[in-house]
Amino acid sequence: MLAIFENYIKNQNLALSEEEIAMITAAAVERTVSKKQILLQAGEVCRHKIFITRGFLRTYRIGADGTEHIMQFSPELNWTTDGESYTHRTPSAYIIEALEDSQLMIWNRDRFDTLLQTIPNLRTYSEQLISRHLHLSRNRLYQTFSATPAEKYADFLQTYPGILSRVPLRMVASYLGVSLKTLTRIRQAQLRHPVK
Amino acid sequence: MLAIFENYIKNQNLALSEEEIAMITAAAVERTVSKKQILLQAGEVCRHKIFITRGFLRTYRIGADGTEHIMQFSPELNWTTDGESYTHRTPSAYIIEALEDSQLMIWNRDRFDTLLQTIPNLRTYSEQLISRHLHLSRNRLYQTFSATPAEKYADFLQTYPGILSRVPLRMVASYLGVSLKTLTRIRQAQLRHPVK
Repeated sequence: MLAIFENYIKNQNLALSEEEIAMITAAAVERTVSKKQILLQAGEVCRHKIFITRGFLRTYRIGADGTEHIMQFSPELNWTTDGESYTHRTPSAYIIEALEDSQLMIWNRDRFDTLLQTIPNLRTYSEQLISRHLHLSRNRLYQTFSATPAEKYADFLQTYPGILSRVPLRMVASYLGVSLKTLTRIRQAQLRHPVK
Repeated sequence: MLAIFENYIKNQNLALSEEEIAMITAAAVERTVSKKQILLQAGEVCRHKIFITRGFLRTYRIGADGTEHIMQFSPELNWTTDGESYTHRTPSAYIIEALEDSQLMIWNRDRFDTLLQTIPNLRTYSEQLISRHLHLSRNRLYQTFSATPAEKYADFLQTYPGILSRVPLRMVASYLGVSLKTLTRIRQAQLRHPVK
């Protein structure tokens, strides 16, 4: 698990020394979770940054009418947290759940804060990650407004290659903000007339 | 204009010294723009961080079919930029335009980077701002999926009090991702049966 993370972080071109990478790794707790296990419950304060070395998490939110709205898929080699709850120590609106048996590296806030203060390049990386998430979130918002359901689905397949075999179709529909019926119709049309 | 900014920044509780605030202010260029003036054109690299001391900007994007999609309203005492284009020096997909005659303070990237390196508390503030924008963007995405058009409109009025008299209704509809017809119907229903 550690080797996967170390390899990942070396490939990010962060100009981190071997010693700094060892410090970052040593500050994490390794954790194995089973499918359906909850990492963050709505109403709890999110106290961790999570890196997925193997497996697959999702972040979702339950609407007033009980509907699940999927905000983020986090396959292996991705980071996840609820930044707002983490930063301001406020109850989270989100649920983070394992969609597969997963292996995680988890940093609590105190330890991660110490790392950020000690390792300037990690701080820069952390800022870049948040900016990246903001960009992706705005892009998704734009897509939601401007794209047809078929375009949204095509974009999804490009953004998350190989994810389709790992996620129930109803979750893909929830992520795209289209009905399961519409998504099924799009898939059937594409199977008859494949675009690519 | 400077007094407005200095007053704003003092109220953010950033533990900045008078000297640091003077440095931040001195690094900015003051600019007055007229209604409809463009601050960033799609395809250009965004080279600035902008603070609005007076007036009102919007950030929008034009879809493949020519439709305008409003991503952000920026009234006075707000910051705006295209973070992705600014950070990676890539062409922006967005247009930033003045919706009213406005007074702005503008920092170019080199100067702002120097400030971030010199003033640690400014860097922390900048990180907080980006995190805040990420939170707002995710919330808006969630609203887009989960709320009815009437709920979206009510939330909009709460988020942007007083904005309605400053923005054409078609832009509010664009921001909410509802048709002008739907928005007009909601407003008429609320005028007949005011909720609050």
